[in-house]
Formats: sequence, C-alpha cells, structure tokens
Amino acid sequence: MPSHPFFHPVSGFDLPRYAGVPTFMRLPYVALDDPRLKEVQIGLIGSPWDSGTTNRPGPRHGPRQLRDCSTMIRAQNGATGVRPFEAINCADLGDIAPNPADIHDAMARITRFMEGIMAHGIRPLTAGGDHLNSLPILRALGKAAPLGMIHFDSHTDLFHSYFGGNMYTHGTPFRRAIEENLLDPKRVVQIGIRGTTYDSEDRDFAASVGVRVIPIEEFHQRGVEDVMAEAREIVGTAPTYLSYDIDFIDPAFAPGTGTPEIGGPNSYQALQVVRLLDGVNIIGADLVEVSPPFDPTGGTAWLGTSVMFEILCQMASTA
Amino acid sequence: MPSHPFFHPVSGFDLPRYAGVPTFMRLPYVALDDPRLKEVQIGLIGSPWDSGTTNRPGPRHGPRQLRDCSTMIRAQNGATGVRPFEAINCADLGDIAPNPADIHDAMARITRFMEGIMAHGIRPLTAGGDHLNSLPILRALGKAAPLGMIHFDSHTDLFHSYFGGNMYTHGTPFRRAIEENLLDPKRVVQIGIRGTTYDSEDRDFAASVGVRVIPIEEFHQRGVEDVMAEAREIVGTAPTYLSYDIDFIDPAFAPGTGTPEIGGPNSYQALQVVRLLDGVNIIGADLVEVSPPFDPTGGTAWLGTSVMFEILCQMASTA
Amino acid sequence: MPSHPFFHPVSGFDLPRYAGVPTFMRLPYVALDDPRLKEVQIGLIGSPWDSGTTNRPGPRHGPRQLRDCSTMIRAQNGATGVRPFEAINCADLGDIAPNPADIHDAMARITRFMEGIMAHGIRPLTAGGDHLNSLPILRALGKAAPLGMIHFDSHTDLFHSYFGGNMYTHGTPFRRAIEENLLDPKRVVQIGIRGTTYDSEDRDFAASVGVRVIPIEEFHQRGVEDVMAEAREIVGTAPTYLSYDIDFIDPAFAPGTGTPEIGGPNSYQALQVVRLLDGVNIIGADLVEVSPPFDPTGGTAWLGTSVMFEILCQMASTA
Amino acid sequence: MPSHPFFHPVSGFDLPRYAGVPTFMRLPYVALDDPRLKEVQIGLIGSPWDSGTTNRPGPRHGPRQLRDCSTMIRAQNGATGVRPFEAINCADLGDIAPNPADIHDAMARITRFMEGIMAHGIRPLTAGGDHLNSLPILRALGKAAPLGMIHFDSHTDLFHSYFGGNMYTHGTPFRRAIEENLLDPKRVVQIGIRGTTYDSEDRDFAASVGVRVIPIEEFHQRGVEDVMAEAREIVGTAPTYLSYDIDFIDPAFAPGTGTPEIGGPNSYQALQVVRLLDGVNIIGADLVEVSPPFDPTGGTAWLGTSVMFEILCQMASTA
Amino acid sequence: MPSHPFFHPVSGFDLPRYAGVPTFMRLPYVALDDPRLKEVQIGLIGSPWDSGTTNRPGPRHGPRQLRDCSTMIRAQNGATGVRPFEAINCADLGDIAPNPADIHDAMARITRFMEGIMAHGIRPLTAGGDHLNSLPILRALGKAAPLGMIHFDSHTDLFHSYFGGNMYTHGTPFRRAIEENLLDPKRVVQIGIRGTTYDSEDRDFAASVGVRVIPIEEFHQRGVEDVMAEAREIVGTAPTYLSYDIDFIDPAFAPGTGTPEIGGPNSYQALQVVRLLDGVNIIGADLVEVSPPFDPTGGTAWLGTSVMFEILCQMASTA
Amino acid sequence: MPSHPFFHPVSGFDLPRYAGVPTFMRLPYVALDDPRLKEVQIGLIGSPWDSGTTNRPGPRHGPRQLRDCSTMIRAQNGATGVRPFEAINCADLGDIAPNPADIHDAMARITRFMEGIMAHGIRPLTAGGDHLNSLPILRALGKAAPLGMIHFDSHTDLFHSYFGGNMYTHGTPFRRAIEENLLDPKRVVQIGIRGTTYDSEDRDFAASVGVRVIPIEEFHQRGVEDVMAEAREIVGTAPTYLSYDIDFIDPAFAPGTGTPEIGGPNSYQALQVVRLLDGVNIIGADLVEVSPPFDPTGGTAWLGTSVMFEILCQMASTA
Repeated sequence: MPSHPFFHPVSGFDLPRYAGVPTFMRLPYVALDDPRLKEVQIGLIGSPWDSGTTNRPGPRHGPRQLRDCSTMIRAQNGATGVRPFEAINCADLGDIAPNPADIHDAMARITRFMEGIMAHGIRPLTAGGDHLNSLPILRALGKAAPLGMIHFDSHTDLFHSYFGGNMYTHGTPFRRAIEENLLDPKRVVQIGIRGTTYDSEDRDFAASVGVRVIPIEEFHQRGVEDVMAEAREIVGTAPTYLSYDIDFIDPAFAPGTGTPEIGGPNSYQALQVVRLLDGVNIIGADLVEVSPPFDPTGGTAWLGTSVMFEILCQMASTA
Repeated sequence: MPSHPFFHPVSGFDLPRYAGVPTFMRLPYVALDDPRLKEVQIGLIGSPWDSGTTNRPGPRHGPRQLRDCSTMIRAQNGATGVRPFEAINCADLGDIAPNPADIHDAMARITRFMEGIMAHGIRPLTAGGDHLNSLPILRALGKAAPLGMIHFDSHTDLFHSYFGGNMYTHGTPFRRAIEENLLDPKRVVQIGIRGTTYDSEDRDFAASVGVRVIPIEEFHQRGVEDVMAEAREIVGTAPTYLSYDIDFIDPAFAPGTGTPEIGGPNSYQALQVVRLLDGVNIIGADLVEVSPPFDPTGGTAWLGTSVMFEILCQMASTA
Repeated sequence: MPSHPFFHPVSGFDLPRYAGVPTFMRLPYVALDDPRLKEVQIGLIGSPWDSGTTNRPGPRHGPRQLRDCSTMIRAQNGATGVRPFEAINCADLGDIAPNPADIHDAMARITRFMEGIMAHGIRPLTAGGDHLNSLPILRALGKAAPLGMIHFDSHTDLFHSYFGGNMYTHGTPFRRAIEENLLDPKRVVQIGIRGTTYDSEDRDFAASVGVRVIPIEEFHQRGVEDVMAEAREIVGTAPTYLSYDIDFIDPAFAPGTGTPEIGGPNSYQALQVVRLLDGVNIIGADLVEVSPPFDPTGGTAWLGTSVMFEILCQMASTA
Repeated sequence: MPSHPFFHPVSGFDLPRYAGVPTFMRLPYVALDDPRLKEVQIGLIGSPWDSGTTNRPGPRHGPRQLRDCSTMIRAQNGATGVRPFEAINCADLGDIAPNPADIHDAMARITRFMEGIMAHGIRPLTAGGDHLNSLPILRALGKAAPLGMIHFDSHTDLFHSYFGGNMYTHGTPFRRAIEENLLDPKRVVQIGIRGTTYDSEDRDFAASVGVRVIPIEEFHQRGVEDVMAEAREIVGTAPTYLSYDIDFIDPAFAPGTGTPEIGGPNSYQALQVVRLLDGVNIIGADLVEVSPPFDPTGGTAWLGTSVMFEILCQMASTA
Repeated sequence: MPSHPFFHPVSGFDLPRYAGVPTFMRLPYVALDDPRLKEVQIGLIGSPWDSGTTNRPGPRHGPRQLRDCSTMIRAQNGATGVRPFEAINCADLGDIAPNPADIHDAMARITRFMEGIMAHGIRPLTAGGDHLNSLPILRALGKAAPLGMIHFDSHTDLFHSYFGGNMYTHGTPFRRAIEENLLDPKRVVQIGIRGTTYDSEDRDFAASVGVRVIPIEEFHQRGVEDVMAEAREIVGTAPTYLSYDIDFIDPAFAPGTGTPEIGGPNSYQALQVVRLLDGVNIIGADLVEVSPPFDPTGGTAWLGTSVMFEILCQMASTA
Repeated sequence: MPSHPFFHPVSGFDLPRYAGVPTFMRLPYVALDDPRLKEVQIGLIGSPWDSGTTNRPGPRHGPRQLRDCSTMIRAQNGATGVRPFEAINCADLGDIAPNPADIHDAMARITRFMEGIMAHGIRPLTAGGDHLNSLPILRALGKAAPLGMIHFDSHTDLFHSYFGGNMYTHGTPFRRAIEENLLDPKRVVQIGIRGTTYDSEDRDFAASVGVRVIPIEEFHQRGVEDVMAEAREIVGTAPTYLSYDIDFIDPAFAPGTGTPEIGGPNSYQALQVVRLLDGVNIIGADLVEVSPPFDPTGGTAWLGTSVMFEILCQMASTA
C-alpha cells in the first residue's frame, strides 16, 4: 500500500530546498501527541545527546545540522530507483529531549521514547548524538528478544569501562547491550574496525562471546561485496539493528566527528555497504557521532544524511 | 491581554536550546492554512530570496541560519525586562516560497504573502534575504498609505538602476518604494551610511525628496541617543516600517554579509538603536542581508537574531 | 609551429608563483581589442555568472579563485610531458562581463563574446560560473552544426524546467541545447551521474533522444579506461565540446560547489578521464560550478585548475 | 625577593615563540611530585573539564589552546612595566586530571588538587574548562573563610538548578558557593551581565543576599574606571577570588565560547578592568569558557591568554 | 589637472566588482617598461615578501588578497567626497619580484624598483609583505634627505637585533633606517604601541634619538583627534613617509596578521587617523603585515584595502 | 629487553587524551641535559623551521600541532599489534631551536643536534618543518657512510637551484645530499612523484646518478604491494633513511601543506606503504611539510601523526 500524501516531503519545485523550517528530509513533523502518529511506519528521530563522549564533544549538535542538510535529499534513490516516501509513511518525530546533566535520566528518556513509538509499530531511524545513544535504544528494541546487529564503525565500542570504572560511555554501549541480553553476540558483526588501541580487551571479549569483527585491513583486501555477503549471513533474516557510526568513513570524507581514525572507506563504499543489505530485516537503525563543531564545510552532515537516506530506502524496501 | 500559552516558546528547561526542529525563537510554526493563524499578532517570517544581489550572493540562506541561532533566545529581555512572548501572540509563519529564477514572480509572491497576513491583522517581522525583499513587503504594507521608515544600513539603497538599466536590485528598493508612493520620504531616515560610492546620485535623490541621511561620521560624533531622538521625531507616531540591514553593523561584528563597509557601529550600539525606538509605531520590520556562506562562526546570525529579538520587544511593547 | 614567446607564462624562477597580478596560468592578458588577439589559438576565459543556480549560489566567484590558484601551474605536464604553452599560443582573454540581474541579457553577452573569438579561430576554455553558462557558449560553438559532447557531472542537466516553468537554470542547459540543435544527442555521453532525483524525467529524455548516460555505479564497476574508451567511440572524431562540472568529483575532494553528491570519483580519476581523451577533437571546453564560498581551503579551485590544465594539454595536443 | 632563574620563561631569543613543548607562558612545568613545587608562588593550572555545560560544549579543549597561544607572551607588561616572572616564582603545574564521565568525582579531583597546592602556599591561576570549575576551586580556597569575588561575565551563574533539578551546571556555581558559605555575598560583584534570560530568579537571589550585579548597560554608561572603583570598594582588602568568564567580552572579540551574548566590552576594556584592580588581594583566579571548537582563528585563546597575563601581573604585584 | 581617462578604474556598472583580472582598485596595470609609466603619479605596488618574519609567516600572500578585495572599492570617498582616480593618475605597477631565499638580494630588488619609479616622479603606495619591506623602500625614498614618518603599529620595530645578532627582521626596520640616516628621528611618531615586550630596549632607543612613541593607552585616553594633531605637528610639512602596519588595529577587526596584540583601535578609528592627516606631505606609504592564511573571512584584507584607499585619497589631495 | 616504565606514555585512563601539556604521543620530555637521555633509543624531535620554503610558508608550525594531535595516539597498533612504547625507550626530545633569519646557521643547529643524540645511539624521528630539514639531518646521519633512502613525496626535491642560484631550498635537499655523498643514489627510491614541473632537470639528474623515481601513475597501476617490494629491494638491509613528505598523500586527505599536488594516494595507502617496510633498517626518519595555517580542521596533522606512529612501530620492530 503506497504512503499517504500527508507523508510526502515538500518538493523543491514548490519550495526551494534551502527554504523552509528544516525537518528531516522535509517530511511532516509529527509530535508524539499528534493523532497522525499511529499512521507512521518509519520515524526519523533526533537524539541530541553526547554525554557519553570521553574525548572531543559535539554530537549533540548533530540532529540540527543533519536536518538542515537533509532538505537537499530528493524523492528517489538515483542508484536503485527506490522512492521510499511513496512506499511507506515516514515522518520526523522530533528530538528526544535529552538531559545533558544526568546520564541515567537521559538514557531513561531515550528508552521511554522508543517504547512509546514501538507501541505504534513505528520503526526508528535515529540521528545521534554519540554512540552511547544506541544502548537506551536497544533497551527498548531488544527487550523482547536479543537482536542481531550490523555495526559500521572504526571502534568496537565493546570496552568494559573507562577512567576508573565509568561503565556508560560511547566506548561501551555494545558491551552493556550484550551483557543485558539485548543483542545476540553470535548475530553481531562489526565492520571497519581500526586505529590505535589501549589494548585488546575489546577484541578478546568479542572473540569470547562470538561477535565477528572485520577490521579495515580485511575490508580493503576482500572488498565490499564479499564482506557484506558474510555480514548478511551472520545476521540472517531475524530482527536486526543497524548502527552506523560516521567515523566508519575515512576522516577526509567525514572530518566532523570526535574520534576519527584514518584509513577508512571512501564515500562510495559508505553507501555500498548499505545497498548490500538486501534481505536484512532492519527493525531500527541509527547514524551517530556527527559532530558539526569539527566540520567547517558541513560535508560530514551531508554525507551522514545521504547515508540515512540509503538506510531509509532499505528499511522502506523490507517493510 | 496576555498571550495564549499555545504561543509560548519551548523552554530550555524542557528541551535544551540546541535540540528540536528549529523555528524562530522556538515559537510554534503556524502555516497559512492553520486555524490558529487568526490569533497571531506578530508573525516571524523567512524570505529566503536574494536575486537582487549584484555582488556576493548568499542571503537566501539567512532564514535557515537565523532560525537555528534563534533557538538560543530566552524569554526575557535582560536590559528592559520585556517578555514579548507573554505580551502578545507570536508565531513562526514559515518561509515565503521564493522563485530563485524569476525576479518579478518572486516579488509578487512576497507581496501576496504579506497581503494575506495583513488580512488577519498580523504585523510581520521578516528575516531576509537581500534588501530587495523590502520592496515587495512595502507594496503590501504601504499600499493603503505611504509609511515612514527607520532604516539602518551602510548604504542608502536609493540608486536608480544598475548595470545598464536593471531597476530591481538590492541597491534600489527604496528608490522604487518612494516612486511607488509606498514611503513618505519626509518621514524616512537612514542611519549609518558609509563606504565608497560610485557617485552622489543616491544622496542627491534623498536631498531632493526630503529623505534624511545620517552618515556614520555624524552618528559617531553625535552619539546614539542624540541621533535616535532625531529619528523618532522624523517618523513621529504615524505607521512606520523598520528596515535593518545587518551591514549597518561593523563587519568585525557581522562579517557574514555580501557588501560590508568598515567603520560601523559595534554590537552594543546595534542593540541600542532599537531600544531607543520607544513610541515609534512599528507596523512591520525586516532584518536583511545575513549571508551565512561568508560567516565561518555563525556569529552574524547570532547578532542578527539578537537584533530581531530587540525589534520584537519593541513591536510587542507598542502593540 | 611552436608558440610565440609572448604567450609563455611568467616563470616561477623570475617571479615566485604567489606573486604578481593573477591571470590564468600566468599567461598574458589579451583584451578583445588587443592586436595580439588574432594570434591566440586557445583562450582561457572567465564567465563569472551564476544566475542559473537554483540552490546554493557562489560560482560567480569561481574565475577569480581559479585564476589565483592557477598561478601554481608550471610549464609541463608531469604525467604526459606535454608543454602546452610552448605548443600553442594560449592567453587569458579576461572575464565575460555578466549581467547578474538579467538572465537573457547575460546569456546574449556570453554568446556574443564566443562568436567574437571564434571569428579569430580561437578555441575557448571557459571557467564558470554555473552550468547554465554552457548553453550560451554552445549557441556560438554549435551554431554551424550540432556538436558531440563529453560531459562529466553528477547531474544530467537535462531537466525540462524548474519551479513552475523556468526553462533556464543550471539544471536545464543541455535539454535546451539539444532542443536548439546545438548538440547531436547521439554523440553526447554523460559520465558520473548520481545522487537522489525528483524523478526520471531527465533520463527518460536522454533515452528518447539517444544521449548515453553512464551512472557512477557503472563507472566504478567498469573502471576509468573502459568507460572512456566507450566515450571516445561515442563522440568519434567530429567536433566535440567538453563540459566538466566540478561536482563530478567526490565532495571530499571538491567541497566548494553548490550541489554536491557523494560517492564520486577521486582526484586521480578526475585527471585520468581527461588524459584518456586522446584523439577527441575538442573545439571548446568549460569547467564549471566551482563555488569558493563553500570551500574553506581553496582546494576545490586548486583541483579545478589542475583539471583545466589537463584539458588544456589535450586541446594543445589535438591542435 | 626576585624570582629564581629556574622559573624564568624560555626567551624568544633562544627559542622562537612558535617552537617548543607549549607550557603556560613558557614557564617550567613543575609536577605535583617535583621537589621544586614548594618554591612556586603562583601556579598556572589547566582544568580541562566542561561537564557542567548545558549548551554548546568545548571548553575542555581550552587549556590546550591557551597554552599554545600563551607562548606568544613576552616578559614585560607593555602598559604597566610589570615583569611578573622576575617578581615571583611562577610555574605551569599541569592539568588537573578530569573525569569526563562523573561530575562529582571530577569536582572532588579539582578540590583535592587545589588543597594540595594551597598546602604549599601556592596561589592558583586556573584556565578552564567551563564555569562550574569555579565551585570546586572555591571549595578549597574558601573553606577556611568565605571570600570576596570579582566576577566578570555576561551571566550571573546564580541560578538554582537546571532541567528538572540538576544543581551542578555552569549556570549555578556561585549559587552553590554562596549556599556553601564559600563566598561572602556582600563582597561579591558581578560585572557585564546581559543577554536574554529565562526569568529574574538569579537577580532576585543576588538582591536577597547582597550580591552586587552591574549590568552591561550600567557598565557602558558609567565607564570602566567608575565601575571598577566601586568593585574595589565592594571587595576591599580581604582575600578575594577573581573569576573571569571569557563571554564577558563581546563575541566579535571572543567568538570561541559556548554561550555568547552580544553587546559586551571590547578587548581594551577587557584588559582595563584587570589593570584597575590595584590593591585587591587576589588569592586565586580563573579564566573560563574558552571553547576552541567555536573559534576558527584562535583569537579567543589569544585574548584569553592576554587576560591571564594581566591577571598574573596583578597577582605578582600584590604578592 | 584631472587624471587621464586611461587611468580610471573599470566601473562596476560595466563589469561587476567580483569579475575581471584583479588589479589594485581595478586600475590599469602598467608594467615598468610600459610607455604609459611616465604619466603615472601614484603607483600601487605589491611587495609579496615576508622573509623578515620571525614568528608566524604569511604576509607574502598579502598583495594577492589585497588586490582581490580592492576590486570592491568604488570611485568616491563617502566621507570626504574625494575622487582620487579623477584627481591624479593612479596605476597598478605590479609586484616587486621578491627573492624568498635571500634577504639581502630581496631588499636590493625593492630599493631598485623604488629608485626606478622615483625617476619618473611616481609616489609609491606599497602593499606588503612584512614590515621589513619599509627599510629597502626608505633606502630609495630617504636617500636624498632623511624623511619624517607617521607610523601606525602595535610595535615600534625599533629593536636592534634578534636571535643572536640577526639585524634584518620585521622588528628592526626603523632602527636600521634611523642608523642609515633615512629617517629624521625627531620627525618620527609611532602611534598605537602596545602588547608585552621582551624589555624596554626599543623605547629607550626611541627616547635617546627623539622618536615620539604614543602608546595605545595614551591614544585611547586622549582620543584620535588630539593625538593626530600632535602627529601632524611632529612631521610638519616636510616630506614624510606613512607606514601602516595592519596590526595597529585590534585583532577582532584584523585577525589576519602574524603578531596580533589585543586592545587596539577599532575600524572607524583606523580610518580616522588617516583622514586626520590633512596637510601632511606624504611622499610614499605602505600597508604591511596582512597575512591571509590567518584570516578565514578575508575581512583583514578588506579592512586593509579600505585603509589603502584612505591613504590614496590623502596622497591624491596633497598632490 | 622491554622499555623502562619511565618511558611509557600517560594513559588516557589516567588523564583524558585532550588534557595535559602535549608532548609527542604523551611520552616524557627528556631535555638534552637530562641524565635519562642516554637511555633513550628513539627520539621524537620537532624541527620547526621552514626557511627553505619558496612558496606558501607555514611548516614551522608543524611540530606544535603534530604534538597536539599526537596525544590521541594510544598504546597499540591496531593493524599489527605492535606496542612500540613497551618495546623500546622512546622520548620527546623537544624542538631544535631554529634560526628563522639565517639559513646556514639554522642548518648547522640541526646537524649539531643530531650529532649530539647520535652520540648516545638515539635514532631520530623528526617532525618538520619543511623538506630542507632533511639535508642537515643527513649531514649528521650520513656522515660516516652514504645511506639508502625511501622517500615518499609528490616532488623529487632533486632540483639544482632556484630563483637565480639559491641552492638551499625545500626543492633541493636531496640533490645536495647526493652531491655531499650523504646518500647513495643507487639505494634511493622516490615514490609518488607527480604534478606539473618546470622541466625535467630533476628527473634527468635522478636518471644520471641512479635514483629510482616511481611516479604516481606507476604507483596506482602496479599497486602498493608491488611498488613497496621493489622499494625494499632497492634499499636492502643496509642503513636507510626514511623521508616522508605529507604532500605524498592526496590533498583531500592532507590539505595542510604548502605545495599540494592532486591525484595522490589515499590515507589507507599512506599507512600501507609504511607497513610494508618490514626488514628495512631504518636508522632515522622524518615527516615534513605539515602546514597548519592551511588546514582548517587539523586533519592533516592527525594524518601526519598517524603516519609517525606507523614509522615508529617499524623503527621499534627493527631495533
């Protein structure tokens, strides 16, 4: 069933793309108390929270700039022909109100928000914020049963703790999620891992629980198609979460992030990896760690919003 | 009568100021077909159109960045104690859809938009766009009877034509407005004029019709209070338009503009001149020529939105 | 016959490359009324006009910054050994005076300029400006007989109209050029096309008239050499125009442009595609859409001027 | 007694000012376990912690960039002739190790550090970090008896709480310090206050406890000398803390900060206010809220380090 | 006698100001071997040389960016009504070819260039480059008899040597010029001096030979008019050189320079000081230390070129 | 024998990576007169000197920014597992004091510094500064016997002289080094050469003495592994110097450099070439031409410091 016209983005032929109050991809803004909410199938959500950041802060400003750039997105995927906004009811559900001064309250707010939209059967596509956002999201989405996960990143985010025992930072969300049984580690694959490390604690943990880590060296050697075939096999057709850290991509393409690691994929590969997810049952996704203060041109947000559109096309196709 | 709570901005205590879909000053967005429109008293409007620019383009991106920065504005004027959003119903009426490829169609769209809201008694506070925007606005507001105008700028914008006969550029709007009887030149005062000029044609015209030009040298010598006392006297208590070109302010404070002229007022004077408008009957206002591509820090938009808030406070006080 | 020493660029050994009034590649400036004009074989020309831009403006500033960067170009192509300035008389013919306030007058000025230099047998290498510049250029060059064209871009620029009927924008030049019989669509190839689209109207038109569109996915899959072999075959040895939109290249390499699309070629491929044009009869060329306001480092103009030098080497070799 | 040569900065005649590992003002780095510590009289300290920030983060990067710029400081104050490094033993004591993931642990670390150096009689000149840093510093310095304070800022930082009860943010430090009896409110003066506010809760509190607030309007009207005479009188000759928020200064001069408010003092006044503190018994000072991510030129840190040098000269003179 | 039309700048009505090969103020470029040279009365010259820089390099790029911005200058001084290009024959004489690898050869080249144009009676207005440029210029202009000098700067540039005996840096030119009898120290006034210093060696020298140093504190206290009256008296009506270091102006207005010192004049005062030179016999002038790499917006060059125009107006008026 | 704990970097778990006085990779700073010096095996050294630059200056600021970014480096190489700081005693030996005003004195200082540390058996890893730094380094390291060299660059730096006879610029170091018998040309390989050239003088010289030049076209065609196998064979197992010019890498990845040439390797290849040096006997290395003023994001320094870490891992492994 095609989408309702209410959910069609404003066209650039009616209002130039640099004009108008910027919602995600020029979709209608549907507040949580809006009667239209129950019609929404995919919700684009901002989570402007970065209190898990232990290094350079800034991703709290991500949703604002991603919305801004996203008004440049048009109706149709040039590579695949998919027209997601006609296939399915998409809407901008606004930002989750963060508490910048209390980590646990902030996480509880995110989980509640997600539970609220899940009650309507809405699948979330969330723009961070830092990577700790994924944990409270998974606490809602993975509550019923542990999920598989395809994770693009330069870091595993599987560390135990930081700086003398802090267990909730943007380096630990998936360690917690596995401990909390929100993810099935045997159905988790992490792609693009690289950079210097303190030690091998994260990879030892991954090995011990069955998380598959594909470092960037293997990625470059095997090629995108081969790697993604393995990834699809790992997650299979059961419900799967997609988590995309913008620092997966090389910092020449995505400088606006807090912990860049050089030697990553280029922007074409950044899209390819999403296009090769056919058949994966994506029940939710996030794009995190876009940090506008470190991005003089805004190019990182433009790249991020382009990735979000590819993810949306996949989610719309597997509806 | 105090404003209706529907028209109160979102508080930073409920949603941090960097979060949320950015409307002007976090006011509700009220579309032209919204039943709430008739309750609005002051409409904040974007006019992202800069086709009148003959030099460095960019003000079409002004409303987007002004909205972004404006979410930093809080409820109360620290200097005067005015709480405009409680005094009067304010709303973001969105952007006027511009036609970037047809100057006359674009102007007609602006005039129609303004006529539409005037029918509801809404006073407009418009964010440009370049200074040519003022002409189609005045074609609506000054249609019934010519208006007075207080005009802050480094240029008179009173030139006849440009580049072999083009009569509609950002250097000509007030020449046209006087010719079209939208402004009463004897009630027009221009403050801050400076910079190199082609010739004296604009000032000769001003002198011939009675427009009062206060060059920056006089401004600096006499001081803000003296100059503004004269300005108030010139416009009196009859309906008056306020046009504020961001290049009135020195480019160290406002680099993000297309035609900067050095030697202007500082940011404190930029606010003072508005605060000294007590008693002026402002029936509409604009803030124009904010050009984000020339502003690496966003400081110009922050200054611009601070000026808009001061103007709003004046408009709310003279309701 | 080797070039006349008058047409040799100033050497960096006589005047460091950052010094001097910047002409294109430090060539002599030859005004249209200069008696030397008739000796010129290739004219480097600026067309600082961007009124066809429907999105982010700025390419009007392209020629200025391209000239600035171009003084870094030395005498010899490091890859091919070609020394174009010794092979053929090259000169900077200055900028075509644009009319920023009148689209049709502006286009007429460009066409007249081109007709003027064609009368001397000068082949133009033009730096834009936006892509609408190509239309008035083709009105001169393709007047006698329709041309072939090799077109590097992320967009087809084959749309019919924009925003309610505007037929002259930077998204329509080649639709118009085909309609006006300036291009032979069967000898037109477009390479690098990508990004989201409103719909498929442009590609349907291309298919209906025989324009060959090579999307970026095909480009990456087949590789540069294979794609360019097909391109050479399409245009054959008859007169061919070369149009190079800087947004053909990935925005990490060329951020300074108004409508970037991610996933494009890298800077090495950006040169390779030109080096693989041996045997193509290039009777004129342009490099468009370099927009300095969106380029904090100036790297886009440096890339653009490097591409211009490659094009010049090809034009000099096929003299 | 003049300072020991060990504590003299490296001269630009021996090592150019852009060279060398950057310590504050090229002073020797004296770690807490260094036997030289007991000779230090004034310690320059970094506190790279900004977890109190509720808006745009970044001041955690302040000490790094302030050290970098501070190597440009030479030996002698050009205006007063003071040579602080010869008058008194100054050293860089390094950064207080912050805990970016735990506010209370972070504050405890700062207080302990300060207690440690107070045991040696060292007066601290601290570079933040956000303004919440002042609270744990005052917990050490004001423990014995409540202090006076001269506070330059655009905000009072006297709010009770934020976002539903968070009592420790950069908007609350001095409310807490007064409640904890670390400051004597009748000997506290706040200078430069301005900008929009949520409400008047902070000023009502100030009035109720006797804090003197000098808003920017009064500052500009009375002039620097008159205002500072009053400030000196308020604090008298008893021990006084000096807290200098860089957002006291107008954002054209100091864009690199998280919560700028326009209409502030210029850079000359920024120095003057410190030069007019003769006779004030400064037992410690801080310079906070320098946020490098929002400062493309580094000018804010240069201004900040120039202010720090003026403060140091005052502290050295009142030894 | 009015100027010859050949020497009139290109008008913005014929060619928009962002278009065209950028010469200083759009004046004709007259090479040294051009027969028109002998008609030139004031020559605008670039000296892109900064080998005297001991700190942050970059002024070698000054002339290029000053020419670029200078195309924004129009025909008439808005404050004084002077139309310099009609009063006197002005031309762009190009750049003096610097030798970036040999200080003494570079200085010899500059002196020779100046001697060459003096032979034609041309007065130079030179854009640097760093402040060491003034020395070789004075070696030509002051050869016949020592000159007076009005010097705007934050540094005296009167130091003896640097870093173990280097006597030719941008901190020493006027020490050398006085030693070489090119300047009459009793007719030299330095205005705006400030910032930290190594010691008082420069001021002691000034005092010993009779150079009048007006520090910024005195400047701010007495006001522009009073200071400039004294300056005019010091130099009298005998031949006087004008040297204007852009770091005279506060770095908020002029960030693009290598050795900024905070607390300087604003942009209006920057113009006023030149406008108050009526009656001074300016036989040559320079504007130095504009360093584009440290100026993200280009505002410093715009300010610099505005100052150059004011200087030119004074030179044209005293012809 | 594992390294002494004194030489272990400060951990990010003790002090966040953005905190602390920045030494190279958070290693201890060991001054030349420190008794610990004799224990050091690899010295990380800054040489902030760029007087050899004939084009855009700035690398003198390289060491400062490289140190700043280098604090992000962690303990272990993610790709190879090497933990260099545990394998071998590494220390930051500070900056070589440059003489910015005297080329020959500056070179003598560098050579003396290197001789000093060689006396202790310390191998240097130097951060420039421009490429002329390599010459005085080689004068120390190659004094005993000519060395082999692996040289990554876009330029050969084999030119004879510049601008009328200047023999010591950043374009000539290796010509001099071969003439001075510091390098064995038959054991020198240059990789990545590209860009326009004045002529072929450098390559003719290379061919005549036996230097192997691998242009970028060959690099891209053969692939990294094949090229590096040849490079290893050329230098063999005898003592070899490694010189890495950051402009080897494409300017999209490394914009912060003075003479960028487009079409270079990406960041992954930039690391790969170093990882493929197993078995090479690296007795010293440098990373040069990082120029912060041309790098708005700092990404070039981050890339440069990542390359330095890879080099360090290789040096530590071949101890």
